[in-house]
Amino acid sequence: MMNLVNLQGKRILVTQSDAFMGPVLCDVLAECGAEVVADTGSLLTVGRIASLVESAGQIDILVANLAIPAPGTQAVEVTDEEWETVFAHLVTPLPRLARAVLPQMIERQAGKILLMGSASALRGMKRRSTYSAARGAQLAYIQALGVEMAPHQIQVNAIAQNLVENPTYFPPEVQMLPVFQERIKWEMPLGRLVSAREDASFAAYLCTAAANCFVGQVFPVCGGWVPR
Amino acid sequence: MMNLVNLQGKRILVTQSDAFMGPVLCDVLAECGAEVVADTGSLLTVGRIASLVESAGQIDILVANLAIPAPGTQAVEVTDEEWETVFAHLVTPLPRLARAVLPQMIERQAGKILLMGSASALRGMKRRSTYSAARGAQLAYIQALGVEMAPHQIQVNAIAQNLVENPTYFPPEVQMLPVFQERIKWEMPLGRLVSAREDASFAAYLCTAAANCFVGQVFPVCGGWVPR
Amino acid sequence: MMNLVNLQGKRILVTQSDAFMGPVLCDVLAECGAEVVADTGSLLTVGRIASLVESAGQIDILVANLAIPAPGTQAVEVTDEEWETVFAHLVTPLPRLARAVLPQMIERQAGKILLMGSASALRGMKRRSTYSAARGAQLAYIQALGVEMAPHQIQVNAIAQNLVENPTYFPPEVQMLPVFQERIKWEMPLGRLVSAREDASFAAYLCTAAANCFVGQVFPVCGGWVPR
Amino acid sequence: MMNLVNLQGKRILVTQSDAFMGPVLCDVLAECGAEVVADTGSLLTVGRIASLVESAGQIDILVANLAIPAPGTQAVEVTDEEWETVFAHLVTPLPRLARAVLPQMIERQAGKILLMGSASALRGMKRRSTYSAARGAQLAYIQALGVEMAPHQIQVNAIAQNLVENPTYFPPEVQMLPVFQERIKWEMPLGRLVSAREDASFAAYLCTAAANCFVGQVFPVCGGWVPR
Repeated sequence: MMNLVNLQGKRILVTQSDAFMGPVLCDVLAECGAEVVADTGSLLTVGRIASLVESAGQIDILVANLAIPAPGTQAVEVTDEEWETVFAHLVTPLPRLARAVLPQMIERQAGKILLMGSASALRGMKRRSTYSAARGAQLAYIQALGVEMAPHQIQVNAIAQNLVENPTYFPPEVQMLPVFQERIKWEMPLGRLVSAREDASFAAYLCTAAANCFVGQVFPVCGGWVPR
Repeated sequence: MMNLVNLQGKRILVTQSDAFMGPVLCDVLAECGAEVVADTGSLLTVGRIASLVESAGQIDILVANLAIPAPGTQAVEVTDEEWETVFAHLVTPLPRLARAVLPQMIERQAGKILLMGSASALRGMKRRSTYSAARGAQLAYIQALGVEMAPHQIQVNAIAQNLVENPTYFPPEVQMLPVFQERIKWEMPLGRLVSAREDASFAAYLCTAAANCFVGQVFPVCGGWVPR
Repeated sequence: MMNLVNLQGKRILVTQSDAFMGPVLCDVLAECGAEVVADTGSLLTVGRIASLVESAGQIDILVANLAIPAPGTQAVEVTDEEWETVFAHLVTPLPRLARAVLPQMIERQAGKILLMGSASALRGMKRRSTYSAARGAQLAYIQALGVEMAPHQIQVNAIAQNLVENPTYFPPEVQMLPVFQERIKWEMPLGRLVSAREDASFAAYLCTAAANCFVGQVFPVCGGWVPR
Repeated sequence: MMNLVNLQGKRILVTQSDAFMGPVLCDVLAECGAEVVADTGSLLTVGRIASLVESAGQIDILVANLAIPAPGTQAVEVTDEEWETVFAHLVTPLPRLARAVLPQMIERQAGKILLMGSASALRGMKRRSTYSAARGAQLAYIQALGVEMAPHQIQVNAIAQNLVENPTYFPPEVQMLPVFQERIKWEMPLGRLVSAREDASFAAYLCTAAANCFVGQVFPVCGGWVPR
């Protein structure tokens, strides 16, 4: 029987592998046959990113898993420090990662970048202005990079997730709050959180050769929280 | 090694299995382990649809593959006959298929409907008003049905494709036209048609349990022809 | 002072002028200086549409205001009759109206069609499958027609509204239901229904020469109910 | 006759009033009766933004017109300096402007922010990764801020424009390039650039009380370059 999500022979770099979707991504990608390079180091400096990629050897696929707990600040109280910190974690590493990892992909005329992004960039939420802005920068970056890299047979795409089980954003104590239950009931056509493995499985699919047809595309994975 | 797209034990009804994406869907779904019920009969009457579903036995997944060559009529010359014919083939069968196939899925609290729809509903094209309208009815129907069926653990989603290799819409003689080559160059970030197997593979993924998290979602498969 | 929404000298045909957004559209368009041709006749037959347009004389702008109360049928119980009735009211008149009204616009190389459509085609709702499908056909039709008509200096666009005050869909007795109040609270970032005049004012703007730059565009007017 | 776009009595702050859409915005808003506070100063420091707003007195509406020529750098050659410069001009000023201007609006429970954003955040383009990312941050910020501010009767929305006549992005020498003409032909259903006044007129409409129903909404103004 055919196995469409066979990642044998693929070396996949997963950043922030101990946060956000990192752990489940490493599990699922490895179960699909990939050789996972799981990095838990900081991505805050350009030097660290360059040396990470250099020491990682061949990278067939980069899974850009970037996370920071979302501040819940009112817009009028957002400080420059909050803004800078969130952008330093979620946005600035992206072009640096691209700069580090794309040359070898361009040379091979093959490769993929998959961003684990957020649907908070697609639908507004209160007290999420900083976070949404950073996530919006990510998605628009991926759209542009995808179009630019397509002629090199390199696919750059993004998952835009929300309401997916993960320890960074939806720890059990949040899931138990009555207001959270109400939110699921009203905002989530799925009626439950998306499971971590559902999200990671879709990411794994997007890492396969079968997904070579997608160009700078943003895939919502949020149980219907955004309609498209 | 895990096989995420293992469809063993799943009976999948593919309509119009000799047209549009039918042949490749039947191949890929079968290669992934599914038992494919390939139907080539007409879907123009409610009676035919009811008897098809009745005789098909258990249907775990319905792949609603509906097609008719797109008329190239100018809007001012569209006749009632053209409109009726296109809607009779692309639109009217959908609620009838749903009515026929959903009761057994609701009883099992499990099942899926996947529409092979068109991105022509997402981006306007000249001389495609009839066709686009019919494809638009499909996508909006799927979105609504998806939300309604989610509480029954039934997933209803759609692929919105364009510029995918298939004999109904892009036969070799069309692909060879210079104007078509120019169109690919300007309109298609991918730089080539999406292959039939890429499209069918994605459809196969959406038929798996791993894709239980998607609710009434429309997935463009068109090599970047629509941005989202 | 400049008046951007000066519709003096414009003859605007408003269909179903006694339903949905009809009354307020007639008021606002007239207050903006337009000569409004308010039609309350049936649009169910091609003959009636042709004679309406013929007798209306010059039509600079067609406001296609089509409505029928939305059935609340479960998808499995939708009958062919329901489907046909809803499509007969919301969908089939559109290409007939276009066929009737476009020749004079093409001859003048000037004109507009504005559809009063629905955001139910952009976001799924339970028990709205028939209605959503019909509204989806409308929007996709407008997108295609808009692209086709642009070279003729004719603008074809749509409002996709929901949760707008109007007697057809949100009569006072619906607005008073507790479940409706809860829905507004959870689903409607605006926190209230859009007023009929807000909607009609936007429609009036889209009827002006200032809006000549819009091509087959769908404008949500729903207080944030759909994000984009 | 009613004038829907009557801005008399409204004080509108337009930033970077000598760049991008600034000049035409000042003209059109003033022609519609507004008192325009046209600022040509730098927005690169938080202190400058705070003092600008303080000295401006009552601001009923902020038109956030932020621009910088878009770099045409390949993604692999984007430097940290380019990234920082573009974000410093397009992104960082936004939360600072919001922080400065919102308190008086919240106190009055009335006000508007309108961003002159870019459709480059909605559709990928080659060699525009930095710029697109910054424009994406803007749009997602506006969506979130819009939802947060709605309960205060403050409307926050954005125009996402492209292919609009303006001296910053489409000076005459660019418009005359043959490759630009080809691009218009293939990518622009409108068949011409959107005029500066069309864009500014729409902005003026969004500044009126009639537009109080829009919440964190992104309005493409690009002649069909993005379908929605």
